Amino acid sequence: MTYCVAMRLRAGLLFASDTRTNAGVDHIASFRKMYQFQIPHQREIVILTAGNLATTQSVISVLNQRLHGEGDHLLNVPTLYDAAVLLGRTMKEIVNRDSDNQHNGVDFGANMLLGGQIKGEGPRLFHIYPQGNFIEATEDTPYFQIGESKYGKPIIDRVIRYDTTPLDEAAKCTLVSFDSTIQSNLSVGLPIDMLMLRANQFEMAMKPPHRIERDDAYFQALRKGWSAGLRKVFDELPNEPWFDVDG
Amino acid sequence: MTYCVAMRLRAGLLFASDTRTNAGVDHIASFRKMYQFQIPHQREIVILTAGNLATTQSVISVLNQRLHGEGDHLLNVPTLYDAAVLLGRTMKEIVNRDSDNQHNGVDFGANMLLGGQIKGEGPRLFHIYPQGNFIEATEDTPYFQIGESKYGKPIIDRVIRYDTTPLDEAAKCTLVSFDSTIQSNLSVGLPIDMLMLRANQFEMAMKPPHRIERDDAYFQALRKGWSAGLRKVFDELPNEPWFDVDG
Repeated sequence: MTYCVAMRLRAGLLFASDTRTNAGVDHIASFRKMYQFQIPHQREIVILTAGNLATTQSVISVLNQRLHGEGDHLLNVPTLYDAAVLLGRTMKEIVNRDSDNQHNGVDFGANMLLGGQIKGEGPRLFHIYPQGNFIEATEDTPYFQIGESKYGKPIIDRVIRYDTTPLDEAAKCTLVSFDSTIQSNLSVGLPIDMLMLRANQFEMAMKPPHRIERDDAYFQALRKGWSAGLRKVFDELPNEPWFDVDG
Repeated sequence: MTYCVAMRLRAGLLFASDTRTNAGVDHIASFRKMYQFQIPHQREIVILTAGNLATTQSVISVLNQRLHGEGDHLLNVPTLYDAAVLLGRTMKEIVNRDSDNQHNGVDFGANMLLGGQIKGEGPRLFHIYPQGNFIEATEDTPYFQIGESKYGKPIIDRVIRYDTTPLDEAAKCTLVSFDSTIQSNLSVGLPIDMLMLRANQFEMAMKPPHRIERDDAYFQALRKGWSAGLRKVFDELPNEPWFDVDG
């Protein structure tokens, strides 16, 4: 399993992904799920991946190989929409190649998030489905999740607003969301990769993602503080009066 | 969809279920999912249901019809384990009858929780799978959920402990869990039915479940207090320092 989340806020874009993969509980490994494509000061594109690892790795390899070819690729398509079309098309190509259009009970599918900014337009964010089609984040729905999304969704719904949430608060919210997910699903695990792109800054050049390891002091303190705070709020809420009536 | 949760604590048993059913988003209705079987001062059995409504209703109807017959039924089986076996067998019988062992893409399956107490043994709680087999709650895992379980799981994991959680706190935790679920999944909805059985009291006789309607003052206050408290805890946690370094 996997947990990835990406947000497009007025302030910019935020990406986060875990690194655990598993094929059964006895075959667990650590793989990066965040990929960067960039031309300094011109375009920055980030892809997060969830699903069949053979598919997602092949898609990224093919996208990388084609950067040096004649046709459309991630560094020459004119808009981020075209980048999403290209990613969807590449995913279909790989799935069709690997599955020979048969299924045999194996799920070759993958979900991907693609976000970033190309000079000339604002920051954009897309969720590409296993079928290769995709949706785009809007001001009403400014974030997407892929993989094990449910445990970490409530806190994002409570906190994130396109217009008003600053990126540092979004980063904190994202890590609380990861904490809830990691607590409840063994197949999502540290380290976490995070990347932040402020709108219209094109500052990413050469910066690798920020990696949060198991012993990261901030994340440990956040988890402890969140857990203790939740417990305190819970304890201070009144008990259901029906209990007293019936008791 | 549905959300049901049941807990077996040292203090007793707690059951809760929502009442929304849907077949597509344009066919939403309200059905009770909590059923009681009892002999005053002798045995009290509660069943919660999730899954195919035709199946769950038929299972309950058949269980009720057979209360007046010769064979095994819920009011004469000697242990709660035997009640779980009976429920599993009845579910398989109904699914096989309705599906004619064909599937046609329709999911005839259901999940059920069965808990209660029969004089001579302690309170017990079972989760019956669509295949008719089942597992029993233990001190390590004192609760089961069926239906849309993920959004409401983290708070239960944080709060509920078999030995130490009193039933009134369990009831509060359960309602917070319902709040998270209702926030995130449209197909889970009020009213909520709740039932509490203190260990060795056999007091349920004739008491219907406590029903929490949309305008329930306690539940409204709980939702508001939880939301405001979460937000306060979140705001007080420090931001990710990496943001300042990179910014």
